[in-house]
Amino acid sequence: MTISRREFSKLGALGIAAHTLSSVPVLGQAAPRKIGYCVIGLGRIADHHMRAIAQGTSSKVTALVSGHRDKAERIAAQYGVPTSSIYNYENMDRIRENKEIDAVIVCLPNSMHAEYTIRSAKAGKHVLCEKPMSVTVSEAEQMIAACKAANVKLLIAYRLHYEPTNRKAIKMIRDGVIGKVEVIDSANGFNIAPGEWRSDRKLAGGGPLMDVGIYSLNATRYLTGEEPVQFTAIATTPDQDGRFKGVEENLAWTMRFPSGALASCSTTYGGSMGSYYKVFGSKGWLEVGSFNYEGLRLQASYRTAPGVPPTKIDEANTEKDPMHFVRQVDHFSRCILENRTPDTPGEEGLTDMRHIESIYKAAGLTLG
Amino acid sequence: MTISRREFSKLGALGIAAHTLSSVPVLGQAAPRKIGYCVIGLGRIADHHMRAIAQGTSSKVTALVSGHRDKAERIAAQYGVPTSSIYNYENMDRIRENKEIDAVIVCLPNSMHAEYTIRSAKAGKHVLCEKPMSVTVSEAEQMIAACKAANVKLLIAYRLHYEPTNRKAIKMIRDGVIGKVEVIDSANGFNIAPGEWRSDRKLAGGGPLMDVGIYSLNATRYLTGEEPVQFTAIATTPDQDGRFKGVEENLAWTMRFPSGALASCSTTYGGSMGSYYKVFGSKGWLEVGSFNYEGLRLQASYRTAPGVPPTKIDEANTEKDPMHFVRQVDHFSRCILENRTPDTPGEEGLTDMRHIESIYKAAGLTLG
Repeated sequence: MTISRREFSKLGALGIAAHTLSSVPVLGQAAPRKIGYCVIGLGRIADHHMRAIAQGTSSKVTALVSGHRDKAERIAAQYGVPTSSIYNYENMDRIRENKEIDAVIVCLPNSMHAEYTIRSAKAGKHVLCEKPMSVTVSEAEQMIAACKAANVKLLIAYRLHYEPTNRKAIKMIRDGVIGKVEVIDSANGFNIAPGEWRSDRKLAGGGPLMDVGIYSLNATRYLTGEEPVQFTAIATTPDQDGRFKGVEENLAWTMRFPSGALASCSTTYGGSMGSYYKVFGSKGWLEVGSFNYEGLRLQASYRTAPGVPPTKIDEANTEKDPMHFVRQVDHFSRCILENRTPDTPGEEGLTDMRHIESIYKAAGLTLG
Repeated sequence: MTISRREFSKLGALGIAAHTLSSVPVLGQAAPRKIGYCVIGLGRIADHHMRAIAQGTSSKVTALVSGHRDKAERIAAQYGVPTSSIYNYENMDRIRENKEIDAVIVCLPNSMHAEYTIRSAKAGKHVLCEKPMSVTVSEAEQMIAACKAANVKLLIAYRLHYEPTNRKAIKMIRDGVIGKVEVIDSANGFNIAPGEWRSDRKLAGGGPLMDVGIYSLNATRYLTGEEPVQFTAIATTPDQDGRFKGVEENLAWTMRFPSGALASCSTTYGGSMGSYYKVFGSKGWLEVGSFNYEGLRLQASYRTAPGVPPTKIDEANTEKDPMHFVRQVDHFSRCILENRTPDTPGEEGLTDMRHIESIYKAAGLTLG
């Protein structure tokens, strides 16, 4: 016999630890059922999620929401989704009646994350929502409340929490390998193409900090295990070609953590920046090059004792895209099956939104 | 026939361009005489300067000032300096009478730069002074005034202005190779040994910003060709072992330039940071790894036209230490011989001191 999500939810509500239950003989030997996902918004990021679902073993694409019926039908055929499970933005609340849908993946522009997360929660579906979680702190709070009220799980798509190179970097720091963290330097940015929704404030809520700088912010938090308590920032928009509609082009910011560690970060939509973090500790340093979907590389140099030659590490993650997404969606499906809280729940997204608000405030800007 | 420094000074005072004169037949074919240097303070940095003087062709060590007679005599023997040209800090004003001394090199702790620059200027000697120029803005102004009043030249030892890799980076940016500069990320720091004068505020005037962060500050200025107009900063001193006497351990700061370019910088005396700058432009990026005395590496990637594959550069400067110092002292000797203003005059140091004051103020600290 298999055990349904709703049965698991009931067990969870009784305070029974699902990870214990999962090894109890009553579950039998049958393969666990696959979690069915409805993908909302069929842009570039949705493609990564859908390929990941197809590649993983825990999940399947069971429905789509799109404003473009033709595109949706083409993708439905590709993933074996019946045309009866294609919705549009007006009728998507009817996903409530579709028992093949356990969860949704919100792949819409930032300003639509709150509405579609809340509508999905009200339809009784778990929600995997892209980052940034929302365009205001208040929206993020409402999203968490809606998911709680509906007793559905919420995961914010911080895929690097599930990626081995970043996990190793975190473990090295926690184990004290590079000593006390003194300074983190991180950057993430790129030269945006004209016409992207991400450079339009109405859809994006902010500039590169919302989209890519958020990786640096989130990394400083998972690397230190601390929350920043002081912020400074400067933003500029030396726009050469009218690409920027009410959002910053460049942003540089600093953060202080309670331990005394500092972070020095920058982001841009106007330059060839790449992405990296460098962590400088009292016994050595480590660096992860690229926040991209593949090709991550961990380099480090540290001393295990005074006077000995430094130990050096240079390791590449050779996994190919969409492996980060596979790990993430498998995690969420397991959380649903085992009634566990995701490693990157709504609260993780809310905390970033609060810090983003602080950074924008320090720069004299407003969020949302 | 050769032409003396004083003769050149006279010509300069008459408004005659020395660089024109230098090719005038009256100078004859004899090798130009070597400029004689008195090295003040015989610590680590003095060693680089003296080896550079010995390696170059324009200069010679002709006198020493030290509080340690034994050490001074050992070094004097090494460089062929007569013992009669060894001075101490009390009698060093007598260098005025020593015609073998054209110029001094101030290699003392920061807080002594002003006094010994001014005393040397009053003794009629040109001054090559280590960075940071001083520990206050007011001192820097007094140093410039003293050198002007004495009609002697003043060079602040920003050796990277004379170094080929940095000069190439500057030229690439000026030529528009990487497009408009959007963001510069730079760091320079190290884990300081206990007992160094550099972590004692009385001698250093400030922490790592004064000693090594100044490289990042100065680089952002020579790379952009602009002066920063807005500053934010946070400093922390999570001192684990009592090394820090009134100076910051970590500092992260941001700067805005009139063009809209931003700089995101950090420095430390508490961690393994290394040194680098990364310049992110609208058409590509360039990076120089290390501000060290040797081993500098320029990497770049940029597009010469949309759609074409990026052009990549990866070039190492294979010159060995003390070649940066050779280029610098040869430049200063030529400036003296040809009555030219050095490329990094007192005003360059003063400008940095003003910016350092702004950075410390933004961090809630005071300079000096």
